[in-house]
Amino acid sequence: MDQNSRVAVVGSGSWATAIVKILHETQPCVDWYVRRPEMGEYIRRHGHNPQYLSDVHFNLDRIRVHGELDDAVRSADTIFMVVPSAFLGEWLKPLSVDLSGKFLVTSIKGIVPEEHVTATEFLKSHYGVSYSQMGVVSGPCHAEEVALERLSYITVSCKHRARAKQICKLIGTDYIRTIESTDIYGTEYSAILKNIYAVAVGVANGLGYGDNFQAVLTCNAQAEIVRFLHSSYPDTRHTEASAYLGDLLVTCYSQFSRNRTFGTMIGKGYSVLSAQMEMKMVAEGYYATGGIHAVNLQHGVHMPIAETMHRILYEGKNAKAEMRRLTEVLV
Amino acid sequence: MDQNSRVAVVGSGSWATAIVKILHETQPCVDWYVRRPEMGEYIRRHGHNPQYLSDVHFNLDRIRVHGELDDAVRSADTIFMVVPSAFLGEWLKPLSVDLSGKFLVTSIKGIVPEEHVTATEFLKSHYGVSYSQMGVVSGPCHAEEVALERLSYITVSCKHRARAKQICKLIGTDYIRTIESTDIYGTEYSAILKNIYAVAVGVANGLGYGDNFQAVLTCNAQAEIVRFLHSSYPDTRHTEASAYLGDLLVTCYSQFSRNRTFGTMIGKGYSVLSAQMEMKMVAEGYYATGGIHAVNLQHGVHMPIAETMHRILYEGKNAKAEMRRLTEVLV
Repeated sequence: MDQNSRVAVVGSGSWATAIVKILHETQPCVDWYVRRPEMGEYIRRHGHNPQYLSDVHFNLDRIRVHGELDDAVRSADTIFMVVPSAFLGEWLKPLSVDLSGKFLVTSIKGIVPEEHVTATEFLKSHYGVSYSQMGVVSGPCHAEEVALERLSYITVSCKHRARAKQICKLIGTDYIRTIESTDIYGTEYSAILKNIYAVAVGVANGLGYGDNFQAVLTCNAQAEIVRFLHSSYPDTRHTEASAYLGDLLVTCYSQFSRNRTFGTMIGKGYSVLSAQMEMKMVAEGYYATGGIHAVNLQHGVHMPIAETMHRILYEGKNAKAEMRRLTEVLV
Repeated sequence: MDQNSRVAVVGSGSWATAIVKILHETQPCVDWYVRRPEMGEYIRRHGHNPQYLSDVHFNLDRIRVHGELDDAVRSADTIFMVVPSAFLGEWLKPLSVDLSGKFLVTSIKGIVPEEHVTATEFLKSHYGVSYSQMGVVSGPCHAEEVALERLSYITVSCKHRARAKQICKLIGTDYIRTIESTDIYGTEYSAILKNIYAVAVGVANGLGYGDNFQAVLTCNAQAEIVRFLHSSYPDTRHTEASAYLGDLLVTCYSQFSRNRTFGTMIGKGYSVLSAQMEMKMVAEGYYATGGIHAVNLQHGVHMPIAETMHRILYEGKNAKAEMRRLTEVLV
């Protein structure tokens, strides 16, 4: 990663758009894979994403929008993967470029459905990428606030600290503080788990519970995250830091969180399917709930909130009754 | 505390009013000391507090409003102290009733100024009350939500668990879940510290920082609370529980928090004095900042946020510059 290094971004949602914004300010050129041809064409002509963060204007001299994945990643040393977990396999299907020698940075806050694996686990098993070739970017970062250049903290986790430092250099700007970490497992799972709890807070909200209860639910959620991480993959980690607790907070307390909104609809009596259709997208927390339930079968960690959400979202149980049961075990 | 036990409440603000509401639903009679005669008279005639939670209507057969402190506490076995920390000494000045044999429950989330002590420390040193005679009530509880009977969690900390259980019985209702604890020190200091951090979040808000940063500031605040408690008074405590992290969250994230509002005014450029005058009351976080700074001189715990607030509120330093310096050390 010297002066001649090249970075690519795979994805075109709001967070991918924010990542491109950051990278094209620090790097001379960013290769950007946008799957939908009309969106790519629009960005090339107008210099902004028509659908996400459309107020962010790109310097077109510094980005190259590609409609073919291979073209976007061929010359790249470092590839940022920023697509919804549910579509990761589909996005990568056309790939024929060899990934060995490239460094993959994921910022995918979900579980790949069916396989119940994280993005790094998926890349390892399907593409033979080793953990020393991968990093995870996480932290409390509404893409909308990055677009507005409001100060945000991003944590970069890599197996080797020196590599994390390099990635930090790529994304550090006036408005992005970077934090190095070596806890790939903890930061990746924490980013996934938080979405389950944002759905739970939404359900409580939809059922009419108030701010006092939201605080109780959120602090118990943090306790569940800490328990899960320490039981499933012990490590010395500082779980009050921004990549863990901070990320949980911004997601649970945001009125704009898709996961929270999804939960609110469930709490108000929508079925899972009708809530998904109404939102015209799937909240990551839905897949995370199924995925973590499956993963936790082998760990057996006490996760009453996550299990409550599983009963509501996957077992057709009544949200009101389940939430009332949950209130009995919170501390 | 058998069937003939009597409870009294000292205080007439919103939280005291909420406590009276709860107690008069579980107990046959509550003696209530209201210092201002016209307020006491109003409550006696109209059955509600004219100034705080005025939608809460009391069953006048179950409360006795007293204008003399001695009359209110003479027959009580258990006395709830719910006044601002800055006025605790003043409220108790007229007391001549002997407190030995009585149990004191404090719910005072501040430091007594000048002396830099908590409410229990104050009662111990000035009234000779031992810790086995005292309890602390805390938790994420907006009084307004208690008034609306929205589910809330209150933690009762006493030296002896059996006593905590008894107090829990006094305040447990359909909408109040109670949690027993023996960590008087931790719950009392945590309730105090959180107000400093709510002021800090307000300052950041007033300076234009966004939600991403608020999450980072709040999780770092939790780390400071945990560090302070573990260094100054080690104990096995579950700091992700509602009395610790939960209480911090509800205070930092509430638009209605006086401490946060006070901080926002400081962030917008008000002087401490003009912010206090504008609010017509003093935020607990102001005294807590001075008090914890003094207390921490002997412990030397790393508390960058609390120290930043001290520089802004007590040393006349520039809020914008201090907050920018703080951003460099958050994780």
